[in-house]
Amino acid sequence: MTVIYQRVALIGLGLIASSMAHAMRENGLAGEIVGHAKSPETRATALEIGLCDRVFDTAAAAVQGADLVVLAVPVGAMDAIAAEIGPHLAAGCTVTDVGSVKQAVIEAVAPHLPEGVAFVPGHPLAGTEHSGPRSGFASLFVNRWCLLTPIEQSSPEATAHLRALWEGMGAKVDEMDPAHHDLVLAVVSHTPHLIAYTMVGVADHLRRVSNSEVIQYSASGFRDFTRIAASDPTMWRDVFLTNKDAVLDILGRFTEELFVLQRAIRMGDGQQLFDYFTRTRAIRRGIIEAGQDTAAPDFGRVAPPAKPGE
Amino acid sequence: MTVIYQRVALIGLGLIASSMAHAMRENGLAGEIVGHAKSPETRATALEIGLCDRVFDTAAAAVQGADLVVLAVPVGAMDAIAAEIGPHLAAGCTVTDVGSVKQAVIEAVAPHLPEGVAFVPGHPLAGTEHSGPRSGFASLFVNRWCLLTPIEQSSPEATAHLRALWEGMGAKVDEMDPAHHDLVLAVVSHTPHLIAYTMVGVADHLRRVSNSEVIQYSASGFRDFTRIAASDPTMWRDVFLTNKDAVLDILGRFTEELFVLQRAIRMGDGQQLFDYFTRTRAIRRGIIEAGQDTAAPDFGRVAPPAKPGE
Repeated sequence: MTVIYQRVALIGLGLIASSMAHAMRENGLAGEIVGHAKSPETRATALEIGLCDRVFDTAAAAVQGADLVVLAVPVGAMDAIAAEIGPHLAAGCTVTDVGSVKQAVIEAVAPHLPEGVAFVPGHPLAGTEHSGPRSGFASLFVNRWCLLTPIEQSSPEATAHLRALWEGMGAKVDEMDPAHHDLVLAVVSHTPHLIAYTMVGVADHLRRVSNSEVIQYSASGFRDFTRIAASDPTMWRDVFLTNKDAVLDILGRFTEELFVLQRAIRMGDGQQLFDYFTRTRAIRRGIIEAGQDTAAPDFGRVAPPAKPGE
Repeated sequence: MTVIYQRVALIGLGLIASSMAHAMRENGLAGEIVGHAKSPETRATALEIGLCDRVFDTAAAAVQGADLVVLAVPVGAMDAIAAEIGPHLAAGCTVTDVGSVKQAVIEAVAPHLPEGVAFVPGHPLAGTEHSGPRSGFASLFVNRWCLLTPIEQSSPEATAHLRALWEGMGAKVDEMDPAHHDLVLAVVSHTPHLIAYTMVGVADHLRRVSNSEVIQYSASGFRDFTRIAASDPTMWRDVFLTNKDAVLDILGRFTEELFVLQRAIRMGDGQQLFDYFTRTRAIRRGIIEAGQDTAAPDFGRVAPPAKPGE
C-alpha cells in the first residue's frame, strides 16, 4: 500500500477515529498518526494501545505539520475546535470530518479555515453501539459507504486524495450534495434512532410498574431497538439539534403513516395491514441485494457464519 | 435424553414448528413426529428434509393417536383448526400452541377441545425474520424463554410435561397470566414491529422520489428496522388484530413520548435529549446482564465470534 498522508492528526479519539487509526496502520496509509482528545485518560489509552504515535494536550498543537486533519468530535463541538485549530493549520493541508450531519458542520467549520486549506466534509456510514478509544477496529469501514460532500473549499485534488484514503481503508466512496445527505440520513439513520430511543423509554416506564419483565423477556423486536438506543448520547443529541429540519420532516411523515396503521388495527382492517407488511418485506430484499446486509438470520445474539449461497 | 411424548403432531410447518422438529429429534424427545400443513409443497418439503416421519393432508388425520398436538399456525387460523381437530383428539392428549398472543388463542381454541384433553397455551420468544419449513434449525430455542400461560384446562401434570419438552429443547420456561403476557409482548415485540414496519414504509415513499438511495445507504438504524419489518406478514397481521387493546395502549404511550422528544428537538432542548438517551442506554445494559443478548458489537452484517470475557 502507498502512504497517502505523511501525518494525520485525529481530533477526538472515539469509535470512528480509533477505527481509522487501526485501518490506516494496517493498510500503511499514513506516515505518522498523531492525536488529541479532551480527556487525559483517553489520550493515555491512545498511546497505551498504539492508536497514535504521539498525542497532544490541545487540538491546536496536534494539527501542526499535519497534511490531513480529521475532526472526529460530536457535531456540536466542531465550531469551537475549528476556531482553535484554524490559525495552526499548515498551508496545503486538508481538513475533513466524520460527522453524521453535513450542513451544520460546514457552517460551523468552514468560516474558521484559512486560505490554502482544503475542507472536504465526509461521513462514514459505519459504527457500532460502542464508543471510546478501545471500541475501534480496522475492519469497521470495509465494504461500508463513506459519503463525501465537497463544497467550494474542497479542491478536486484534495477530494481525490481523501477518497483514496477511504478506499484504502476498505470503504466505498460516493459524493453527494450536503443538504441531500442530511435528508437521506434523516431517513435511514437519524429518525430510526429517535424512534428506538422512544420505544425503549416507553418500555422503561412500564418496567417500573411490572417487575423488570420487559427486560427479562425482551424478544427480537425490542432487543434490536435497545441495541440502537445504546449509542452515544452526546453524539445523538448533537445530531438531532443540528439536523432538526430534516428530522422533523421525516418524523411528521412517520407519525402520519403510523396513525394509518393504528387506525387499521382499531378498525380490524387485516387486508390493509397485510398489504403494508408485504411491501416492507420487499424493501428488505432490496437492501440484501444492495449488499448492505446478509440474508443470514439474526437471532439477536452472535450470528452464525453465513451459509454458502446466501 | 428421555422420550417425553410418543407421538407429536405439528399443525403448521413454518419456522417454529420446523425448529421444534429439529430440536426434538436432536435431543431424542419424541418417539414419532407427524405433521400437517395447508400447502402440498410444504408437506412434500417436510418429508424431503426429514422434519416429519409422516405428513397428513388434513389436521384431523394428523392429530389422531398423538399425545402432543402443537398448533403452529397464524393466530387467526387457530379457531378453524381447533374446530377441525377437536373430535379427533385422543383422550389424555395435550394440546399446546406457539402463538404470539395468548388471550385470543385461548378464546379461539379452548371451546373446541373435549373433556379429558389438556390445553396448555405456550409462546416461545424466539424467531428470525425467515419463514417456512426450510427456515428451522435445532438451536433456535436454546437459552430463549418459552412462556406458558396455563388455564383451567391445563392440568398441572400436562403443564409439567410440556415444560420438560421445552427445557429439553434448551429453552428457559416461565409461567404467566395470559393477559399479562399479552401486555408484556405488546411492549417488547408487537409495538416495536409495528414501528419498524412504519419506518420502512416512510423510507419507501421517499425512495420513490429519490433514486433508491435510501436502500443504497441504509445505515445501521434503518437496516435493523428492515430486518424486523421482513417478518411474516400473515403472522403479524393476526398479532395486531388479536392483541388490539394492548397494542393500542402501548402505541398511545409511544406517541405521547415521541411528541415530547419531537418538541425537545424543535425547541433545541439538548439537555432533555441527552438525559433521555442516557436513560435508554442503561436499559440496554440491563438486557445484556439478563443474558438476552451479548455485548459484542453488531455491524448489521454477520457478527464476529464473541470475544472471551464478553
